[in-house]
Amino acid sequence: MKRPLITLLTDFGTQDHYVAAMKGVILGICPNAQIIDITHDIPPFQIGAGAYTLAQAVPTFPQGAVHVAVVDPGVGSARRAIAARAGGHLFIAPDNGLLSLVPGAAHQKTVFEITNSRLFRRPVSKTFHGRDIFAPVAAHLAGGVALTKVGPRLAAWNKGNELTPQPDGSGGWNGRVLSIDRFGNIVTPFHWKDFAAVAQRPSRLRIGSLTVTDFAETFDSMPVGRVALIRGSADFLEVCLRQGSAAEVAGAAFGTAINLAFT
Amino acid sequence: MKRPLITLLTDFGTQDHYVAAMKGVILGICPNAQIIDITHDIPPFQIGAGAYTLAQAVPTFPQGAVHVAVVDPGVGSARRAIAARAGGHLFIAPDNGLLSLVPGAAHQKTVFEITNSRLFRRPVSKTFHGRDIFAPVAAHLAGGVALTKVGPRLAAWNKGNELTPQPDGSGGWNGRVLSIDRFGNIVTPFHWKDFAAVAQRPSRLRIGSLTVTDFAETFDSMPVGRVALIRGSADFLEVCLRQGSAAEVAGAAFGTAINLAFT
Amino acid sequence: MKRPLITLLTDFGTQDHYVAAMKGVILGICPNAQIIDITHDIPPFQIGAGAYTLAQAVPTFPQGAVHVAVVDPGVGSARRAIAARAGGHLFIAPDNGLLSLVPGAAHQKTVFEITNSRLFRRPVSKTFHGRDIFAPVAAHLAGGVALTKVGPRLAAWNKGNELTPQPDGSGGWNGRVLSIDRFGNIVTPFHWKDFAAVAQRPSRLRIGSLTVTDFAETFDSMPVGRVALIRGSADFLEVCLRQGSAAEVAGAAFGTAINLAFT
Repeated sequence: MKRPLITLLTDFGTQDHYVAAMKGVILGICPNAQIIDITHDIPPFQIGAGAYTLAQAVPTFPQGAVHVAVVDPGVGSARRAIAARAGGHLFIAPDNGLLSLVPGAAHQKTVFEITNSRLFRRPVSKTFHGRDIFAPVAAHLAGGVALTKVGPRLAAWNKGNELTPQPDGSGGWNGRVLSIDRFGNIVTPFHWKDFAAVAQRPSRLRIGSLTVTDFAETFDSMPVGRVALIRGSADFLEVCLRQGSAAEVAGAAFGTAINLAFT
Repeated sequence: MKRPLITLLTDFGTQDHYVAAMKGVILGICPNAQIIDITHDIPPFQIGAGAYTLAQAVPTFPQGAVHVAVVDPGVGSARRAIAARAGGHLFIAPDNGLLSLVPGAAHQKTVFEITNSRLFRRPVSKTFHGRDIFAPVAAHLAGGVALTKVGPRLAAWNKGNELTPQPDGSGGWNGRVLSIDRFGNIVTPFHWKDFAAVAQRPSRLRIGSLTVTDFAETFDSMPVGRVALIRGSADFLEVCLRQGSAAEVAGAAFGTAINLAFT
Repeated sequence: MKRPLITLLTDFGTQDHYVAAMKGVILGICPNAQIIDITHDIPPFQIGAGAYTLAQAVPTFPQGAVHVAVVDPGVGSARRAIAARAGGHLFIAPDNGLLSLVPGAAHQKTVFEITNSRLFRRPVSKTFHGRDIFAPVAAHLAGGVALTKVGPRLAAWNKGNELTPQPDGSGGWNGRVLSIDRFGNIVTPFHWKDFAAVAQRPSRLRIGSLTVTDFAETFDSMPVGRVALIRGSADFLEVCLRQGSAAEVAGAAFGTAINLAFT
């Protein structure tokens, strides 16, 4: 018997009771659920970083999984909560762009507003929808409740494409740092498939005071102590320093501007 | 078939092998157990913070769960280990006040001292009772061993109410910070039901050099950059700063004194 | 029905999608797997710390578990990936010494090189073998694939004994810090069974500018504010400070030199 699979991604951290409260609620409704943490260490309120990390993790999971994502600076406001199906996966999130990078989500039509309060934990607090709305709705979906029961279908939702690279007017692209990983590798918003489409390879990347022109095939083939570009495991262009932190060298943080040139 | 549910709360952190060792022992005794982490990031030896976090998480879990809590500065000393039933949940902890805030625990009579060494992992080390006593006893209880088998019933145990607010002699209350969450929200020990009981609303809170008189209904309705009081998701009064850290502004830490006045 | 048990130990941290990607791949191949995190907070590239932590956790788990360990500065290079059986447990790791401290591993003969690409996730990236090789191979083994199917048996593998204490020429031993735990306790590489073998007890430990001559039986019997030696829960000699950080007092870090003398 296959167990329903629910993943969680939040900016709640792991120090408080918040994540455990979501899991307790889920197991009360769907005792058989397998709950997997994607991460709870998204920097507080950074919707872009959450969107990137969710999009990287989701395709590795088997279809049918229910993914709950909560990075939600607007909790308690009028922002909508949504449930969606994309690429064989189900998603529960605030409607703030958090699902914008999920493969297939941009063209998704099966998006519903979550309004059916019979699926909620009562009473619904004004500050903790993760526990009172997102977790119980996910558990009901994992347990077999139909997606159409959560509320009305939406014609439009927040595709939050502020992270999409833009042409710089000189044949190159401008973008912003999507993520900096534990090793200090800088993930850029430039995806390998874009280079393939234009049959081009970038020649120069600028970030902060740093200009990078070297490409490497593997971490191991990089000279120690010298920043280089690499095709990351997520197929985005990354700026790396072998056994060191490229982010530290570049002075880069989430959101730092990047320019990519071709010649 | 419902799987036995065991939660873990410790101050062990997640860097070392300590938490995994507890899980290994549990799965060796009760292979079918579902193990959920509440948190392992309680500040070292902070029994009060552990008690608060445990009390917030527990009511979200289904009844029948076994909760193991280990914040244990007295490990290896004469402090007792206890097992208790409260509110349909089972608890395993050192007898140092860690269970004092669990709903219903204060009036609990079914508390037992853990002395039955046949339920332990052998040999019992002097420094790691989490692995050698708390984890295996929890696994045996989750697997069906009766609570009465762990050892003798206790007439008295440590209800550790040093965190309970006290009257300040001027119609207000004194207390200390229960917790500071990842977002810098300050959790006070003043519970909403106490205000309801006296049909009063507090008018002013003092913490460090800060005096707060504003109330907000939601995070979203708070002016950015201005500290306000809010009814937290745990029904305790919280001091919050929208999209910022109230704890930083107030210079507050776990245990900082707070005064609450009514007019 | 017993569920296949897979543990994970990495230096990936928990902020990124890396660990979740490994779990997603595992659950796609072996939906029934129980996945337990040992830790993901091994300091980046510190193979010795990973080896120590893995060795401490493994013996607490039931036999038959599959342990995946990834601390892998050589990812993408010619370093081999190995699968091994030791003490009733299965192991998947890069061949860089990460398995060197596992009980029984040093004398192990059933070690195989992982070369069978039919067990991999395709395409195999050059930078993320955790997701593309280690996780899927572990899931296949947990699901019943025979160890001999992963690739050819190896006559020799990396037993990485650079952490083994060496005689200092004066009747004592030299070694280096194996680990520093969350509480600042310093784990030395000197194992209690070595003292038993020589019917001796050490009399003096030197680390940095610190000389320690006091022994304590329990944390509780240590005077507050004074560093002492203790038999740790892992049976290694540890340097501890009651309710304080011995590592801070000694200025010790992972790898700091230690000398142990007998009289």
